Amino acid sequence: MDADNLFSRQIKEAKASEIREMLKVVKSRDIISFGGGMPDPCLFPVEDIKRITADVLSERGALALQYETTEGYDRLCRKLSGFMSSGGMKVSPDEILITAGSQQALDMFGRAFIDPGDEIILEEPTYLAAWSAFRTLRPKVILAPMDCYGLKPDALREILRERRSANGGSPGRRIKFLYTVPTCQNPTGITLTEERRRALVEIAEEFDFLIIEDDPYGYLSDEPNPPFIKAIDGGRTIYTSTFSKILAPGLRLGWIAAPEEILTKLAILKQSLDLCSCTLSQHIAYEFMERGLLERYISKLKVAYKTKRAEMFAALEEHFPENSTWTKPTGGMFIWAAVPRKVDTRALLPRAVENGVAYVPGAAFYPSGGGTNTMRINYSYPTREQIAEGVKRLGQVIREAG
Amino acid sequence: MDADNLFSRQIKEAKASEIREMLKVVKSRDIISFGGGMPDPCLFPVEDIKRITADVLSERGALALQYETTEGYDRLCRKLSGFMSSGGMKVSPDEILITAGSQQALDMFGRAFIDPGDEIILEEPTYLAAWSAFRTLRPKVILAPMDCYGLKPDALREILRERRSANGGSPGRRIKFLYTVPTCQNPTGITLTEERRRALVEIAEEFDFLIIEDDPYGYLSDEPNPPFIKAIDGGRTIYTSTFSKILAPGLRLGWIAAPEEILTKLAILKQSLDLCSCTLSQHIAYEFMERGLLERYISKLKVAYKTKRAEMFAALEEHFPENSTWTKPTGGMFIWAAVPRKVDTRALLPRAVENGVAYVPGAAFYPSGGGTNTMRINYSYPTREQIAEGVKRLGQVIREAG
Repeated sequence: MDADNLFSRQIKEAKASEIREMLKVVKSRDIISFGGGMPDPCLFPVEDIKRITADVLSERGALALQYETTEGYDRLCRKLSGFMSSGGMKVSPDEILITAGSQQALDMFGRAFIDPGDEIILEEPTYLAAWSAFRTLRPKVILAPMDCYGLKPDALREILRERRSANGGSPGRRIKFLYTVPTCQNPTGITLTEERRRALVEIAEEFDFLIIEDDPYGYLSDEPNPPFIKAIDGGRTIYTSTFSKILAPGLRLGWIAAPEEILTKLAILKQSLDLCSCTLSQHIAYEFMERGLLERYISKLKVAYKTKRAEMFAALEEHFPENSTWTKPTGGMFIWAAVPRKVDTRALLPRAVENGVAYVPGAAFYPSGGGTNTMRINYSYPTREQIAEGVKRLGQVIREAG
Repeated sequence: MDADNLFSRQIKEAKASEIREMLKVVKSRDIISFGGGMPDPCLFPVEDIKRITADVLSERGALALQYETTEGYDRLCRKLSGFMSSGGMKVSPDEILITAGSQQALDMFGRAFIDPGDEIILEEPTYLAAWSAFRTLRPKVILAPMDCYGLKPDALREILRERRSANGGSPGRRIKFLYTVPTCQNPTGITLTEERRRALVEIAEEFDFLIIEDDPYGYLSDEPNPPFIKAIDGGRTIYTSTFSKILAPGLRLGWIAAPEEILTKLAILKQSLDLCSCTLSQHIAYEFMERGLLERYISKLKVAYKTKRAEMFAALEEHFPENSTWTKPTGGMFIWAAVPRKVDTRALLPRAVENGVAYVPGAAFYPSGGGTNTMRINYSYPTREQIAEGVKRLGQVIREAG
């Protein structure tokens, strides 16, 4: 068979995620990995899930093993509506759709909104897997720069106004959406300030685009977060989050909260993607919330991850060269480090892996290129001992290169 | 917001599945539904799944709740490789990808192979949800007619040769694939003969296209099936099946078996769709197979569905007008009926629902239009009493219209 014309353009252009491919190598050898974004499996509430699953199957096994509606288990949607309202978001259960993790939500946003040539706005650095999901639809990308307080609204406004001027004052092709992880961002761990969130909403109003607020990590933050963007402007914000970081990724459950007109369209799309999300998982997540276990588990995670984060801060302080910097996230799973300018972290990775430690080169998160001396370091998955030892190894490799 | 240009062309063109929308109505009222393709929930092996889940969580909870590789749980892939080999397919575990039900497989085939304007071949009538997944990618469709033995290879060859002649002997734009449900077909229940399967493989060779063999129902057939198409020609056949009909749809698990080059591309695509399928479900399915429960459960399903099918045949014989015909499937979940020519089953549906019975109008399965006097009738979900009563009501409504 002639494979060259076999595949669609979309799949020809799709790239294997650098992170996943690297993780495969890491998994197969004795390497300390700061690479992935995996929760600490020692913390999974295994006993609770065991008890819940037994109860669910005893009480309503015929329901929990059958097809569910595409929108999701209605009692879970109601629970999530309440869960979000405690964070100031007013979302009715009818405005919620259960997804197969937030990755499915990202894929759906791309397919629902992007035609080739449409414009979207990404913060830079941005979450790699979102960019992977969007890029196959061939959008034009406007990059919004960040500083240590997150996305810079003023700079973005400037870029958008210039773009409008260049079009002779006409708005040009419609910008479909801005995609942001405003709280404990992936990859940097930075939380966008309230002031900037409000400014972002104003810009979205002025230039008439949607905001996609991706929030996998907000619930794991130690500090009170600024208001959700969706709590500031529910009308043009689509919110998405996931149970992967606050319960268990193996359940493959996330959710989308969006205005009903948008949600209806997304549900029609999801019908042809997988009909519905895992019913058994939905019943487990519902019961976990219903029994008041979610809040308690999140509190436990916060304490555990705070300890690991502190361990990593201390190790970075001790082992990284003096002219390195790193972010100080209040939560999430990542620290973002900039090492001496002449160190290319992508080129350095094989050497680090040889020395028994892995990370994700920062350049992977820069659609424009750039970020060559940066790296994303995960602290949720490794043990405390691995954090100390891994950062020591990593510091040494960087010093040798620097 | 101006919703008109908000959505992508794909989602503007996407249609809510007629079946799902109708099922919503049906679910909300006291109606006997022959509409969906749902298994009988009374037959779910709830106790087995309960025991297995408890064991899995006790023995390897940290694994079963974590992210899995995109390709799927390796022990499950090995099991499936063995399972298929007993049906004569030689497929290595590396040629298997675990999906979120077979609906995800269908979506992936569309995205992996179809660029707008590419040609694909569908049998007519064809499985509606496959056509829904493919149509958003705007392929040109060549329709292969069927008779009571399934797709007619001679007619298809004729169509393809004429198409080539019309192109002045050149093959023209490449045909990407033929999609078929060769065993206990959805919607008709017909099983394609071995002779025709072999002819189909020859045609695929002559015109150089892939065959997608969708096989959700083959394992539920009472009679020995003809060889799998993939067992005849593994090189250009992509096989897909699902645990939805032989275990439980709520687990959202299916699988694809394809040549490794194709499988690698599909895995890259799946990374951006949902990272991986539900890990817990994969462990449950693996253990269900490992403990020898799958074969036993399939035997039980066959007996139960055979009884229901017989019940339905008897009811159709008794209540449908004389000039009606229906297929005599050896398995699966559907019977396909043709009622008197002047009865439009789509127009008749609201009247049927008023009288407390639902089905799927056959026209929904005809991409070209046509099939206006046909209907798909499901016998797996309703109880035996509902089958008798529902067919009685349906017969009456048809008689009144005929």
